Parts: sequence; structure tokens; C-alpha cells
Amino acid sequence: MQSHSSTQSERIRPDDLPADNLKPTRRATARKYNHLFAIHAKSKASCLTNQDSTEQPSYAGFRNLMVLMLVVSNLRLMIENIKKYGVLICIRCHDYRRQDVVYGALLYFLVPCHLLIAYFIELAAAQQAKSDMARKKKSDAQGEDREQEKRDFQVAWYSIAVAHAVNATLNLIIASTVVYFYINHPGIGTIIEMHAVIVWLKVCSYAFANRDLRHAYLYPDATTPLPELYNSCPYPRNISLSNLSYFWWAPTLVYQPVYPRTERIRWTFVFKRMAEVLGLSITIWIASAQYAVPLLQNSLDHMANLNLLSIMERVMKLSTISLFCWLAGFFALFQSFLNALAEVMRFGDREFYSDWWNVSSIRFYWTSWNKPVYHFMKRHIYSPLVSRGVPPKVAQVLVFVFSGFLHELLVGVPTHNILWVAFAGMMWQIPLIFLTDPLQKAKSRTAKVAGNLIFWISFCLVGQPLAALLYFFAWQAKYGSTSKMHQKTS
Amino acid sequence: MQSHSSTQSERIRPDDLPADNLKPTRRATARKYNHLFAIHAKSKASCLTNQDSTEQPSYAGFRNLMVLMLVVSNLRLMIENIKKYGVLICIRCHDYRRQDVVYGALLYFLVPCHLLIAYFIELAAAQQAKSDMARKKKSDAQGEDREQEKRDFQVAWYSIAVAHAVNATLNLIIASTVVYFYINHPGIGTIIEMHAVIVWLKVCSYAFANRDLRHAYLYPDATTPLPELYNSCPYPRNISLSNLSYFWWAPTLVYQPVYPRTERIRWTFVFKRMAEVLGLSITIWIASAQYAVPLLQNSLDHMANLNLLSIMERVMKLSTISLFCWLAGFFALFQSFLNALAEVMRFGDREFYSDWWNVSSIRFYWTSWNKPVYHFMKRHIYSPLVSRGVPPKVAQVLVFVFSGFLHELLVGVPTHNILWVAFAGMMWQIPLIFLTDPLQKAKSRTAKVAGNLIFWISFCLVGQPLAALLYFFAWQAKYGSTSKMHQKTS
Repeated sequence: MQSHSSTQSERIRPDDLPADNLKPTRRATARKYNHLFAIHAKSKASCLTNQDSTEQPSYAGFRNLMVLMLVVSNLRLMIENIKKYGVLICIRCHDYRRQDVVYGALLYFLVPCHLLIAYFIELAAAQQAKSDMARKKKSDAQGEDREQEKRDFQVAWYSIAVAHAVNATLNLIIASTVVYFYINHPGIGTIIEMHAVIVWLKVCSYAFANRDLRHAYLYPDATTPLPELYNSCPYPRNISLSNLSYFWWAPTLVYQPVYPRTERIRWTFVFKRMAEVLGLSITIWIASAQYAVPLLQNSLDHMANLNLLSIMERVMKLSTISLFCWLAGFFALFQSFLNALAEVMRFGDREFYSDWWNVSSIRFYWTSWNKPVYHFMKRHIYSPLVSRGVPPKVAQVLVFVFSGFLHELLVGVPTHNILWVAFAGMMWQIPLIFLTDPLQKAKSRTAKVAGNLIFWISFCLVGQPLAALLYFFAWQAKYGSTSKMHQKTS
Repeated sequence: MQSHSSTQSERIRPDDLPADNLKPTRRATARKYNHLFAIHAKSKASCLTNQDSTEQPSYAGFRNLMVLMLVVSNLRLMIENIKKYGVLICIRCHDYRRQDVVYGALLYFLVPCHLLIAYFIELAAAQQAKSDMARKKKSDAQGEDREQEKRDFQVAWYSIAVAHAVNATLNLIIASTVVYFYINHPGIGTIIEMHAVIVWLKVCSYAFANRDLRHAYLYPDATTPLPELYNSCPYPRNISLSNLSYFWWAPTLVYQPVYPRTERIRWTFVFKRMAEVLGLSITIWIASAQYAVPLLQNSLDHMANLNLLSIMERVMKLSTISLFCWLAGFFALFQSFLNALAEVMRFGDREFYSDWWNVSSIRFYWTSWNKPVYHFMKRHIYSPLVSRGVPPKVAQVLVFVFSGFLHELLVGVPTHNILWVAFAGMMWQIPLIFLTDPLQKAKSRTAKVAGNLIFWISFCLVGQPLAALLYFFAWQAKYGSTSKMHQKTS
């Protein structure tokens, strides 16, 4: 195939394919001594022995193999599951009571009313501010001192704050009470509770932001100007029903009189995103009905016996499905749903998350996976605390305590079990943050990968499935396998 | 935390951490209007929506997650296995008969004798050549025509070739007969059969290469010089016992009078490689005893019932463990063992494989995973065939037919079932090669990845476990669960 004279100096490489480099013209000279050309012409190390980084082989093929193995092993588990349980997906089998739907619908309309009440409170405050302004202009009290100003403002804010606090707290108390005592179905309960918490956060942001706007209106200060963006809608013009309605539907939890807006609504974009929401919701529903529920159910015995090896095995098996549901749910909510909503509202800032999957520190996970909540915490809790002299580390801990309460509210209330596991989970983030912070700052790639692995293990492979197991276990311990709630509460 | 004047133009990025960018000097101005700074200052797309390739986020975190999921899911299967079967590893339980060991040991010493016989044949041929040479010099027959030379040489070669053919074929027939009829243990059988095939290939290479050397010695031709490397040991000086012994132990199947050699033996390198061989062998043994054997055993019913879904499920489960054993075995044999052997023999060319895991075409897999055999096929089968005018494609097919026979010999004889599945597997490579060749040549990355996936699926995920199942099934059908071989043959 090659004349031995040329082969001697050439290395045999996989791309020196017989068929390719055998030119008909060379065949005559190659005819002689085919069995003799020097295959082993030079000393050469094996490619896996070779420590020289320039000659290291690529391992891209093993990455492809890894993806393939993940797909195949999960396909296999799906076949195993279908052979064991048959098809468990059933649309008519959903066990919710008429009472759940009625209370759910009622709350769905009642909760936003608290935003309306907040509007009326702000409307009264704005009237008051306008008359104060008129009086101030008349008396032309230029000599009045800054401290007196502040005291006057604080007295007025005190009563407004009480009104807002009563309104907001009532929203949360009413919704949580109804969900805890009268809505049995945990899915409906979670949606209602989440709605109530979102509206509660919006009411708080609306009240705080308007307080600052009012202060800036009454006592303008050239050294701290308002953001230029807000100039198109100055206080008190922003206290209007249309402005509030926009905030009510906008995909954000922090109130601004004006938001960056897009030019027009791209309806194809909206429909694509909504199709994603629909597709992913169905996928998640199938995944939980077919894979998570039987898994949770047959984990109960192991949990009750406190067999550690078995619990580990169940948590590991559950972690795949919970991770899948979590990733699909994240995409459906933060990418598809919020983008669709933002498009319809022509809301410009679509940064609902950043690339949290690459984080090396748990801190960055919490600042990047859920930007709407992070923005609320930053603007209305952390930053005011720090500006009042609270040390930043303490303020961070307080943010996590607050966030822990919200998480417990969102998980414990709809499942009718205030276990404080969700709260403890949030508290557990604090030591993890201080453990992983050095890894993010480290220069070495290994440290960053280690931080990323700690994040995935602590959060997705251990935290979530363990919490799901605990709440499911508590639910079953309280209600048995199906809803006995009705007999108990009514 | 930030004064609203500065925030307005800045984007909130995950690395703008509260604790980091709050300078004490800014606290005084930041004090006012904490609840007011513009969080949403600019329009911006979500990072997963962003189609602009320069702003695409990295997905490195998901790669880490993938590795983690593979580790966790296989750890879980290991827990499940240990709960189901307990520890299956047992050193004293190995069921081999005294007869197997005796015949195995006999063949271990008998097989290399065929190399010695080949040496004596070549020694006689060399004597003959030397006397021919002396006669030629005396008669000084310069006018003799080339055709006569050739005819003379062919006549001599004919008898030498017959002697070699008888010797080599006897080696293969004796070893295969003993293994098939008298050695029950498939492990011992495989080792002996592989030894016999390796020595057979070496004898063939020795005979062919020395024929060409002899021709070059008798009728030197300046237009086709021998490789320079061979000059240090010209024919017939290479026909010596020490030269043959080196070829016998050298990690190659192609005979060269001289090989590239290293300066010295690095004993630490040898010990490291041997430690790898030992460690990997134990790992493979544990993996097959604990994971593969129970899996194969409980696949038997599904195989017998021809339940397609179950067979698929078993093949998928088996593919993980067979892939693991295959990769570990490849590394143990081609990287660790052959490198250790080469180091001890001071054999320079360590290219026993190249990066076959990245191949996009099945063709490149077969030219790169097992270089010793590939070199043999190329030098002693493909290239002589092509130089005699056989079309390259036909020569390639003939190489695969020959390789198929060798594979069947190595699998079918030790398992006492000539099923032709290994042969069919090799034949199946030919259409796969013509299917995947265009993918390797394609410029697009997707085509290359597709080719790589076809390789992994066809070879490691389907081919190997299916073949293992078939031979295991046939073995069990013939012998039941343990060795009834003895009653049958004796």
C-alpha cells in the first residue's frame, strides 16, 4: 500500500487510510516487499501516557458517551417503572374537593384587593402631601430646619405605615388561614399561597417606594436626585389606578413609577413561550405522577424504619426525578412564563435569572436564580438595614431568616405541616455560603469545580429530595394515603 | 446600598454583591431613598433567550452536574445490588477442574514451540539462500534474466511456505481442539486461545517478512532499498534465536529484523503499569462477579420468552457494566500491560492505540483501537492484496472477513458455542463503516457528534451487551448453571 521507503519516515496515523493514500501510480513500486515496510519506525509514547499537554488527546468522545449513558440509564429506569406500575397517569383521578376550588377561586379574587387598598392608602397620603405642599408654598417657610421636616414626615409616615402593615398582614393571614384549614389539595394550596406572598411583597414595595417618592417630593434635595427614568411620571402623578395595575401584572416585585419598556408585543414570541409552559407543565405532571409518587410512596417504610442505607438509596433515586422536575419547572416559570408575561406587558428588563448553574459559591446561587425576589430583598431589606448601620453580614443573615419564613409559608402551609424544614434549609445556606465563598474567589479551576459540585450536591441531590421526602412523609402520617382531611376539619 | 444616582446607569449583576460594593464612605449619601433606586434600569433579554452567540452563557455547570448524576445513579444501583444479592465475590468458589489447568499449562508451553519450528524452517531457508548466493557469485551469472530469478525464488518459497503453513495451522488446530473439547472454564480457554492466535499471527508475520528479506538478499535492487532501520541486522544475520526471542516477547504482531529501542528500562514505570493491571483486573473481576453475573442470570427468562421490552431493558442495564468492564479492560491491556511489557523489552514504539473514543466513523475505530492487529492486517493482508490488483474496497471487506473468523475463534471456541455472532458482528461493521464515513468527512460539528454517538451506540451500548447475552444464554442452554461439561465429554 505504501512503498517501504516512504513509510520509514512517516508515522502510521489513523487518517492514513489504506484506501486513501494508495495512488495507482505508486502501486508498481509498492509491489515488491509488501511484508517488509517498517511499521515501527520511531519511538513514541502512548497517547494516554503522554504527559506533554500539547499532545494530550481530546476527550470529547467521552463527554458524548456520558450524555448517552445518562439518557440510556434513565430510559431503562422508565421501562422498569412501566413494567412495575403500568401507566399511572390519569386525568380524572385527581382528588380535589369542590370546597378547595371554591375557596381557591375566592382567594384568587380577594388577594389582589389588598393592592387596591394599598392604592387607596397611597391616594390619601398623596392628597395629604399635595395639601402640605400647597401650605408650604404659601407660608414659604424657608427658615424651617431639616430636623422639623423629618419629624413631620415621620409622624405622617407612621400612620400610613400602620395602615399598610394592617392591610398587607391581613392579606397574608387570611390567605394562609384559608389554605391551611380549608384547602386540602396541596397543589391548589401552593398556587394560592404563592399568589398571596407575591401580592404581599408587591404591597410592601409599593408602600416603601412611595414613601421615598413622597419625601423627595416634599423636601427636594439636589444632591440626591431621583433616577432620570422616573422623570416621565413624577410623584404624585404615579398614584393612579393604571400605574398600579401595570405594577400588579408586571413580572417584578419592586415598584418603580416607570420601567424600561419595549416598543411592541411580539405575539409569536409570546405563543412560543406559552407553548413551552404548557409542554413543560405536562411533562412535569407526568414525571411526578409516574415516577415521583410511587417512589415517595415506597420510601415510606424505609423512612419509618430509619434504615440509613435504604434512605440514602431512596434519596439518590428521588434526586434524579426531583432535579428533572426542578430544572423543567425553573425553565417553565423563569424563562418561559415570565418572558411571555413580560412580552405581553412590554416589560423591558428580562433578567429574571442569570447563569446560576455555573456558580462556585452558594451565595451566587441565591443572588442569581430568582432575580425578582433577590431584587426585593436587596432594595427593601438588605440595603435599608445596612444604611441604618447594621453590619452587612448581619443584614445578610436577616435576609435569609426572612426568606426562610417565606419558604416555610410556601411549603408548610399548603401541606398543612409547619415542620420548619424549609426554614432550616434556608438557615443551612448561611454556613454553606461562608464555606464556599473562598472557592468562588480562588483562581484555580479545581476549586471552582469543587464549589460547583458542592452547590449541586447540597442543593439538588440532597436538599430538595430530602425535604420532599420529609414533607411527603409528614403528609402521609397526618392524612394517610388519600384525603381524610375532610373528616378531620369539617 | 448604592445611591440611586449611580444605580440608574449600572446594571445589577450577580457579582455586584451587597457586601462587596457598599463602601463606608458612600453610606451617608446612600442613606436616603433606599427603597427607590432603579432596579430595572435598562431593557435586557434573559440569558437563555439570548441568541447572540457572544453573550451565550457557559453551560460548564451542567457538565459537572452530568458527571455527578452518573456517579450518583451508579452508586444507587450498587446499593440496590448489595441489598438484593449481598456480597457475591468469593475467591474459593471458582469452579475450574484440574484437567483445565493441566491442559492450559501444557498448551502454554506447547504453543510457542511453533515459533521455534518456524525458526528452524527459516534457518534451513537461510542456509539454502547462503549457498545459492555463493554459487551465484562463483558462476557470476550476470546475464541471467529476471524472470528466471523470480521463478527460482518462487519454487523455493513454495516449499518453505508449505512448511510454515503446516506449522502455523497445526498450532491453531491443536490449541482450538484442546480448548473446545477439553477445557471447560471459559476464562482459561480464552487466555489459551488468545495466546495461540497471537503466536499464529507472529509465525505468519515472521514467515512473510523473511521471505521478502531473502528475496532482497538474493536479488538486491537499488530502486527499492530496505528501510534504513534494518541495516544494523541484515539478512541472514537476523535468523537467530535471540532475534526470534525478542520478536516472541515484543508487544507487536509484525516482524521487523530491528525495532526502535529505548535507552534503558525505567523500573518505576514498569511497576506503576503493573499495579494498574493488578488493580484494574481486580476491579473488573468484582464488577463482573457482583454486577454482571446476576444481571446475566436473571436475563435468561426474558431471553427465553423473547419479551422485547424486557430484553431492551436488560441490554440497557447490561450496557453500563459491560461498557465499564470494556473501558477498564482496554486500559489494563493496551495502556498498562503493553506499556509495561514494552518498557521491559525496551520496545520504543508505544502507539498501541490512538484516541479512538473521538471517532466519528466506525472505520477509524477499527484502525485505532488495536494498533498491533491493525498493523498486521495492513502489512500482511490488505497491502499485499491491493498490490496484486484487488480493489481496495474488496481488500477491506476481506480483512473484516478474516478478522471476523479470528473473533469467532476467540469467543466461540472457549465458550464451546460456534454461534457466528462474533463473526456476524464484524461483518456488520462493513455497512456501518460506509454509513459513517461521510460523517467523519463532514465539516459540521453536529455530523461528527452524530458519528461518534452512532459508534458508541452500535458498539458499546448494543453490540457488546447483546453478544454477551447471546453467548451466555447459549452457554447456559448447553451446560445449565454449572459445569456439566465433564459428564458430557468424558
